[in-house]
Amino acid sequence: MSRADNTQPLTVMGLMSGTSVDGVDACLARLEFVAGRLQYEILATYTQDMPDAVRSRLLKCMADKTVHLEELCSLNVAVGELFADAALGLMKAHNISAAQIDCIGSHGQTIYHWPPTERGKLGGTLQIGEPSIIAEKTGVYTIGDFRPRDMAAGGQGAPLVCFADLLLFQDETIGRCIQNIGGIANVTVVPSHQSQKQSEKPVIAFDTGPGNMLMDAAMTHFFQKAYDENGTIAAQGQINQAVLDVLLKHSYLELKPPKTTGREQFGAPFLNELLAEFPDVSGSDWLATLNFYTAQTIVDAYERFVFPVYDVAEMVVGGGGAYNDTLLNTMETLLKAGNRSIAIKTHADFGIHDKYKEALAFAILAWASLLRRPNNLPECTGASHSVILGKHIL
Amino acid sequence: MSRADNTQPLTVMGLMSGTSVDGVDACLARLEFVAGRLQYEILATYTQDMPDAVRSRLLKCMADKTVHLEELCSLNVAVGELFADAALGLMKAHNISAAQIDCIGSHGQTIYHWPPTERGKLGGTLQIGEPSIIAEKTGVYTIGDFRPRDMAAGGQGAPLVCFADLLLFQDETIGRCIQNIGGIANVTVVPSHQSQKQSEKPVIAFDTGPGNMLMDAAMTHFFQKAYDENGTIAAQGQINQAVLDVLLKHSYLELKPPKTTGREQFGAPFLNELLAEFPDVSGSDWLATLNFYTAQTIVDAYERFVFPVYDVAEMVVGGGGAYNDTLLNTMETLLKAGNRSIAIKTHADFGIHDKYKEALAFAILAWASLLRRPNNLPECTGASHSVILGKHIL
Repeated sequence: MSRADNTQPLTVMGLMSGTSVDGVDACLARLEFVAGRLQYEILATYTQDMPDAVRSRLLKCMADKTVHLEELCSLNVAVGELFADAALGLMKAHNISAAQIDCIGSHGQTIYHWPPTERGKLGGTLQIGEPSIIAEKTGVYTIGDFRPRDMAAGGQGAPLVCFADLLLFQDETIGRCIQNIGGIANVTVVPSHQSQKQSEKPVIAFDTGPGNMLMDAAMTHFFQKAYDENGTIAAQGQINQAVLDVLLKHSYLELKPPKTTGREQFGAPFLNELLAEFPDVSGSDWLATLNFYTAQTIVDAYERFVFPVYDVAEMVVGGGGAYNDTLLNTMETLLKAGNRSIAIKTHADFGIHDKYKEALAFAILAWASLLRRPNNLPECTGASHSVILGKHIL
Repeated sequence: MSRADNTQPLTVMGLMSGTSVDGVDACLARLEFVAGRLQYEILATYTQDMPDAVRSRLLKCMADKTVHLEELCSLNVAVGELFADAALGLMKAHNISAAQIDCIGSHGQTIYHWPPTERGKLGGTLQIGEPSIIAEKTGVYTIGDFRPRDMAAGGQGAPLVCFADLLLFQDETIGRCIQNIGGIANVTVVPSHQSQKQSEKPVIAFDTGPGNMLMDAAMTHFFQKAYDENGTIAAQGQINQAVLDVLLKHSYLELKPPKTTGREQFGAPFLNELLAEFPDVSGSDWLATLNFYTAQTIVDAYERFVFPVYDVAEMVVGGGGAYNDTLLNTMETLLKAGNRSIAIKTHADFGIHDKYKEALAFAILAWASLLRRPNNLPECTGASHSVILGKHIL
């Protein structure tokens, strides 16, 4: 959007359910474009739990990768009703009427994603959670199914959140790395507005490597816990250099962006192989090593692919990893060791709860779509040009 | 729409692929609402053949009723590209640019339809042929996926064409039965505008019973031909009263509308049972009998369910059956025998090619959606209220 494009404030709700399929997050925000900057205010948030029955049907469908068409139709309805319940739950809890909401943007639940396999061929994707049901139950104009339009233009249909990162975090003079640390860690590099204007540097986004995935797997293995709260256990252990050396040889780290990774490369089987190779290392030493490794893959990715091209003054960390003090401290130490003067902030410093970041992102994507403005970033998705994502239900 | 609602003329293309999966029909029409009447002019038509490879994948998916999610994503892309090719083919053949078209309305290819099983529960449906790809390849504003919005409002998601029948065929003083004779025969009863105003009689639509399905199956069995051209063979045979008596006992005929039927009730297995029961009847006698039966089920349906409620002066026949002279003659004879003074016309009498009727209907549905006007008929679909069907890709 150009800096001259002021807009009237609109109230938009984003709905998101991630790959963990544990609930639908709703975020209602007031959005306005003033003098080239997105002004945002989060008005309300809400989470609709995913009933076990629906969750297991979804997980079965995603694991089998094969589905009966009646089950697919039925799941599309059931998930659509859940997304509608999330919207209605937010409205009821905060006493907000349909007339007060300009638009709902729903990501839906990804069931399958099939990115383009070669240049010139189109990929496909399947998000369910029928948006017509959200429109019917809430009475609010609904926009859904954002990914296919990018893929029709040759894109990967992902990442889409970088569009929101650009609007939420672009500063006039300061370049930022928006670092999400979920299971996998991914970064959106948002150049300062000035540098972008001068040198037309694009926004880039890529997966830096593992996020909490390896640490969580080790916590389950050694301590039967889901995660290492605050990185306390990692802080008690010692880094094992032999393990670290093996980890740092992972071929993903040298690949040039754009690149994505996942559970296939950094999941439990990868860790199990290493555990067998180093049977004498203690649990807390594993945690210390994996914590350090995760921090180093992020900082190394910046050193290899970001700092040579972009001036970055701030890192904005989000996701579960933002609450891992050991991880944040290590990143700070590594950045300083490289003579980088970079302040580490969190999404909370910008008034954004980590849990609702993606729901907010889809509110922003829907807001742009409603205003008929392109809302993919071809430099991030690989699309041949910018397009207006989202299917509108009037 | 109210009679006062004049509109500017719009140029809209409809795209349709039916259950036979043999090609994508495209129909470009100029549509305008003047003094309460739809003015339509068909500007161009085109058919994009379905490549055998895509057709067999679609038929396999529909037969298996189970699909790998990658195949579903891939088919959604392949069929979307075919629909785009149909639109581009029409544009190229008639030298029409994207700028001359206001909107494309695409039905997509139905893969599965799962109507609501009980009152208060929602059904689902699955049409593929990604409309984002049509928008990308043509550069034209595209509306797709019409059925889910009706189903979100509790409807069957069908029939949708009756909305177009109402706009195309409603007369000021004359009531009409719009009789489609495809594999199955279905009627839309369009009351005159005057009678609708006076007594608020709704449009009704239902399947009258078999269309060409039984005749075609007998032609294949006895003559290894796909259909009885002009009803020539039927005209050479004699009606077998014993067979006819059995056929007329079919329980579907007495069911009150709204009702739908299909291949499950009037397909080859049903005929095969009868063939075994009456092994001595000749092929031409079977054709004569089935032709007469088809005509009688249509006229009987009118006598039972239409004439007691509606004043009908014209029957407008469409579909393959419109070219079966023996069938049309029998219907005329039966109507006269019931002292009904009803003129039998065809879609061609209204300037509409049978082959492109459904594509035209989806142009009309998209046109209404673009004008933000409700375009389902709840009295036909069972929806709890009228809604604007279609998902808009900007």
